[in-house]
Amino acid sequence: MLVDGLPAETVPAADRGLNYGDGLFETMRLHRGRVCLIERHLQRLRMSCVRLGLPYPGDALLHADIERLAHGQAEDAALRLVLTRGDGGRGYAPPAEAQGRRIVSLHALPPAGPDAWTVGLCTTRLGRNTTLAGLKHISRLEQVLAAAEVAAAGWDEGLMLDDGGLVIEATRHNVFFLRSGRICTPPLTHAGVAGVMRQLVIETADAMGIGGEEQPLRYDELHEIDALFLCNAVAGLRRVNRIGTRELGPGDALEHLRSGLVERGAAWLS
Amino acid sequence: MLVDGLPAETVPAADRGLNYGDGLFETMRLHRGRVCLIERHLQRLRMSCVRLGLPYPGDALLHADIERLAHGQAEDAALRLVLTRGDGGRGYAPPAEAQGRRIVSLHALPPAGPDAWTVGLCTTRLGRNTTLAGLKHISRLEQVLAAAEVAAAGWDEGLMLDDGGLVIEATRHNVFFLRSGRICTPPLTHAGVAGVMRQLVIETADAMGIGGEEQPLRYDELHEIDALFLCNAVAGLRRVNRIGTRELGPGDALEHLRSGLVERGAAWLS
Repeated sequence: MLVDGLPAETVPAADRGLNYGDGLFETMRLHRGRVCLIERHLQRLRMSCVRLGLPYPGDALLHADIERLAHGQAEDAALRLVLTRGDGGRGYAPPAEAQGRRIVSLHALPPAGPDAWTVGLCTTRLGRNTTLAGLKHISRLEQVLAAAEVAAAGWDEGLMLDDGGLVIEATRHNVFFLRSGRICTPPLTHAGVAGVMRQLVIETADAMGIGGEEQPLRYDELHEIDALFLCNAVAGLRRVNRIGTRELGPGDALEHLRSGLVERGAAWLS
Repeated sequence: MLVDGLPAETVPAADRGLNYGDGLFETMRLHRGRVCLIERHLQRLRMSCVRLGLPYPGDALLHADIERLAHGQAEDAALRLVLTRGDGGRGYAPPAEAQGRRIVSLHALPPAGPDAWTVGLCTTRLGRNTTLAGLKHISRLEQVLAAAEVAAAGWDEGLMLDDGGLVIEATRHNVFFLRSGRICTPPLTHAGVAGVMRQLVIETADAMGIGGEEQPLRYDELHEIDALFLCNAVAGLRRVNRIGTRELGPGDALEHLRSGLVERGAAWLS
């Protein structure tokens, strides 16, 4: 683990990430010594820093940290990059001149799990908040409680609704669904994390002429969709074959999409 | 500062408080060497731990930590107590056997500010989430962004609305308002922090026969109220004499209430 570029295992207890969830993170896939989609990850991070008024350390420092941890890693792994506003004493108001802090760590990949996943519906909802929607920030207590539900129920993943009953995402994946032959995903204007892999899937489905549209999906419309799949930047694509008690088909569209993603450079999906 | 009962300035970077906002906190007033309302603070913390499934360290350890920091402090101060779920690796799902971590720190009181405060309306909203409503958790990015608005605008405090346009609280205070001669406060069933001082004010106003009811307050009803005041466990009560461009009266009800609070043991308010 590197903290501000130096090997370390701790951070100051005054860090605003710890005290107020005041920060952002990225989780990246390391494949054959390279970080997949790194430019997209850093681009999202840069834009998110602008939205939160967080200092962005610059591409050069982040590339150097990542390179140092990734170097010589033969096994695929997950790289986690956290940016916080740094130390800030007591009180919500950010210091006028925040220094920021960056923490980069390497982790074994989570178990791949089954080929096709069973998902349930979490009772923990996502609050609607246009100021935070889309950001991969570290104030993630909603996801923590939903993930605890998933574990307790023995599902592979759990769908999360917003306060208005719209399906937004799963606890650690974005969701895509097949409806009327089109691959669609919920808009994230009011809640949810705008994933790097989600964006790549949108662009790929659009380029292949098979979808990519953002469409709201109400909870009571889940029985009308023809397929559901999940994605994130570490796992790639996951097929869902069961929502609660409802079985879903094998999803030819998903395999078609996967081949398109591989053609567009997502080699670790093949 | 004490981390798990020992003097320390750092925490492991793997702490789930840092990585996911997975924790709770209390901010307490130290007055003449004693922590005001300590039983109420610990009671809230204990109940909040149950709601989040966080391990509660027990009253004895928390009393010992607090006693150690408070001992010999002649000046009034603020004591901050953070409980996190402890270390937890990568992934939202809480470990089956979370160890938890407790961090207790002593801080100078914030400046008291003027006698009567000017408040504005923050554009950052509070997401509605019944699972988290009322909890003083550390996933506080909404408050951070709202507090940045307050600082930029030069207000003393800022009111926060929920996603539906209801007034819920201020960035670091609960709010009470006078309407039809009654002291009322917004319900916190969907958003907001259920403050220890808020609860004491509710009980006191009720016992005095001057209010204590929870009543929704829409944004467009702010021009109809007769007085507004703010409270928290560190500052006590604050009178508001201006909301945006609207002047508010001197608030005799507030002085009446303050005397009732002092009688009920809130001696540091006198």
